[in-house]
Amino acid sequence: MTTQPKKVLVSIVTIGDELLIGQTIDTNSAWMAQQLNAMGIWVHRRIAIGDVREAIIDALEKEGAVSDIILITGGLGPTADDITKPVLCEYFGGTLVRDEVTYNMVMEFFESRNLPRLQRNVDQSLVPDVATVLHNIRGTAPGMWFEKDGKIYVSMPGVPHEMKGIMQDHVMPRLQTFFDTPAVVHQTLLTSGMGESFIAERLTDFEANLPSGIKLAYLPSYGLLKLRLTAFGQDGQSTAAALSVYFQQLKDLLPDISVYDEDVSLAEVLGRLLTAKHKTMGTAESCTGGYIAHSITQIPGSSAWYKGSVVSYANEIKTNLLGVKQTTLQANGAVSEAVVREMAMGALQQLKTDYIIAVSGIMGPDGGTPEKPVGTVWIAAGSAEKLVTVKFQLRFGRMNNIQMTATYAMNELRKLIV
Amino acid sequence: MTTQPKKVLVSIVTIGDELLIGQTIDTNSAWMAQQLNAMGIWVHRRIAIGDVREAIIDALEKEGAVSDIILITGGLGPTADDITKPVLCEYFGGTLVRDEVTYNMVMEFFESRNLPRLQRNVDQSLVPDVATVLHNIRGTAPGMWFEKDGKIYVSMPGVPHEMKGIMQDHVMPRLQTFFDTPAVVHQTLLTSGMGESFIAERLTDFEANLPSGIKLAYLPSYGLLKLRLTAFGQDGQSTAAALSVYFQQLKDLLPDISVYDEDVSLAEVLGRLLTAKHKTMGTAESCTGGYIAHSITQIPGSSAWYKGSVVSYANEIKTNLLGVKQTTLQANGAVSEAVVREMAMGALQQLKTDYIIAVSGIMGPDGGTPEKPVGTVWIAAGSAEKLVTVKFQLRFGRMNNIQMTATYAMNELRKLIV
Repeated sequence: MTTQPKKVLVSIVTIGDELLIGQTIDTNSAWMAQQLNAMGIWVHRRIAIGDVREAIIDALEKEGAVSDIILITGGLGPTADDITKPVLCEYFGGTLVRDEVTYNMVMEFFESRNLPRLQRNVDQSLVPDVATVLHNIRGTAPGMWFEKDGKIYVSMPGVPHEMKGIMQDHVMPRLQTFFDTPAVVHQTLLTSGMGESFIAERLTDFEANLPSGIKLAYLPSYGLLKLRLTAFGQDGQSTAAALSVYFQQLKDLLPDISVYDEDVSLAEVLGRLLTAKHKTMGTAESCTGGYIAHSITQIPGSSAWYKGSVVSYANEIKTNLLGVKQTTLQANGAVSEAVVREMAMGALQQLKTDYIIAVSGIMGPDGGTPEKPVGTVWIAAGSAEKLVTVKFQLRFGRMNNIQMTATYAMNELRKLIV
Repeated sequence: MTTQPKKVLVSIVTIGDELLIGQTIDTNSAWMAQQLNAMGIWVHRRIAIGDVREAIIDALEKEGAVSDIILITGGLGPTADDITKPVLCEYFGGTLVRDEVTYNMVMEFFESRNLPRLQRNVDQSLVPDVATVLHNIRGTAPGMWFEKDGKIYVSMPGVPHEMKGIMQDHVMPRLQTFFDTPAVVHQTLLTSGMGESFIAERLTDFEANLPSGIKLAYLPSYGLLKLRLTAFGQDGQSTAAALSVYFQQLKDLLPDISVYDEDVSLAEVLGRLLTAKHKTMGTAESCTGGYIAHSITQIPGSSAWYKGSVVSYANEIKTNLLGVKQTTLQANGAVSEAVVREMAMGALQQLKTDYIIAVSGIMGPDGGTPEKPVGTVWIAAGSAEKLVTVKFQLRFGRMNNIQMTATYAMNELRKLIV
């Protein structure tokens, strides 16, 4: 791509046996990649290795050969399986010495909690003398910054909030002063209701005419498809301006399936719509079992527009708390249009909200019948004045069926509000 | 380690720009690692690279040099950013030919859905003639199995349920016949209430006396600490027997903090306890906003012991649906012992369950006061006969505070039931 300056490349190296046996899902790398991208630093590779000396040294050598920055997380805890620090000390040719600031922080950490301090805790304040110490105010293991042959290596603890703190407090500001990074701008269009290949067909000419510095990616996300345009350039403002022209073309080509022109969750989209209209909503959840409520309430400030949910997992909760009639349940079964309609109406009364979502379905793996196989879902969304009901037939595993039901239900309400 | 046979090593290679910019969290690798471990196959490294020809070829060469099996996911979709298949075809020296079975499956997929079929969909049935095709009954992109210089390379789509299906239907059975794998046995003890370094101190002698074929790992998981013992051996039965001796020693050393001797979620532990006693439970959630209900209802069959939740995010839901008194709210505030007690009692009546959990707190980032800073949480757990209340002061980000509140609340109920 001729229009972009030399990219600054980073490798993310994650250390820990727990990642190799699948006991931990790596969420750190995604967060780091997002932050670095916003700074115009490009993740070249991500690798995960075990708590093994040879594997760590091999990774330092290989990644140092291809990337400008090597960010290392994990393996710095106080227990015996954490060997990263001695290996780093060996690799960069240093000696472990006590860092006084960290030593005082560790002492204070244990004193303030009235906990005895152990030698292994005190040892957390030992750092290679060839490293710049990046102090960790959220835990006892400090970050360490090394430089070798013009490359930068940073080691951080793997605990997510400690890693994030050290990145924000130390690593990102230091990297910014070290590199003259290109501008990278992303813009994402959320769509719903059309498959990847059909969208691609509609965008054939659009994609063919994109300049070399702008790239389109298709990112399926259960129930939604995200279309992300990325532009590289000399400075943020002109790059963003160039991108916005193509983003507008993209939107104009997909008016029927566009959901939102920002990469936020559907719950966040609903929140913005409701806030603008000074309205509130609630939920009545059977098969999603609280997942819609959770998707909404993990957003800070959602209490301004979301009041609550009746999770009516058992049928008696549907009748007792939501006023669904016994006769309706008996005549139609819990997974039916009539029941989600009564759930919605009952919840509107109980929760006293302007809008409501009600869902009932069979998420699997068991519980299906020939007439209502696993994946059958009824959704009601709307208000006392206008309530829409819709049926979906899903075909995934239990957790994905729950996620897709939440997405579809929130999208139905969104369509009705806009 | 002298007691174990030669390990079969696997590298997991994930292809896709979305992983490098952090828009997608990689859950596939963890699942694959778990499955492979259970078969005695060891994940040597996991790497994530972009949709770039050179990066893919470099990864195939480097991983092929160190591992016996290279499992590749992603980059097989019908859109233009997916380049994996042509690169594989080039690397393994093949020609793209139509696979008739896949062709018929693709045709049938579009016909049965009444969708027009596009050339790019039909092209999904093109495969390198040097590959064994692994048919994908859940989507249109088939898996491909290559062999080169005694190493096995498998390419699969990145959509989780398609990848899992191809692994289970084809890859794992084929690997089993190819390799004489060692037995690997894990056993995990869940603990709560003591920090990693204090447990390590208590286990100093135990760790020092472990034989070389048995390994202990500390896996912190918000609110819990998992202690995992792993043993390698010639056959599963004798390896498991050897492991169980040390696992019993481990349990005997930590009676005060042991939660459960299996690697399952706390919700699953509660479910097993309640099922054995033929009892039911419900929840009344303010600050966790449905997360406890969701943690429980993602377990298949949880409807046998879990009835539902009142997510009382707004105070008026606490009064209207749970019978919390206005005077109690005014005198104590929503985050108080008196309010969680009334929420619990109200929910027991409304939901008609044997046991209840009620929580109210300030999860952040805003909403704290000098007397009740962000992270203040009150929990009530128990039954109409015996209700325990406890206060926690958390110090993480919003999502982690929600998760820890759920863990602590479920653990309080567990302690009361056992």
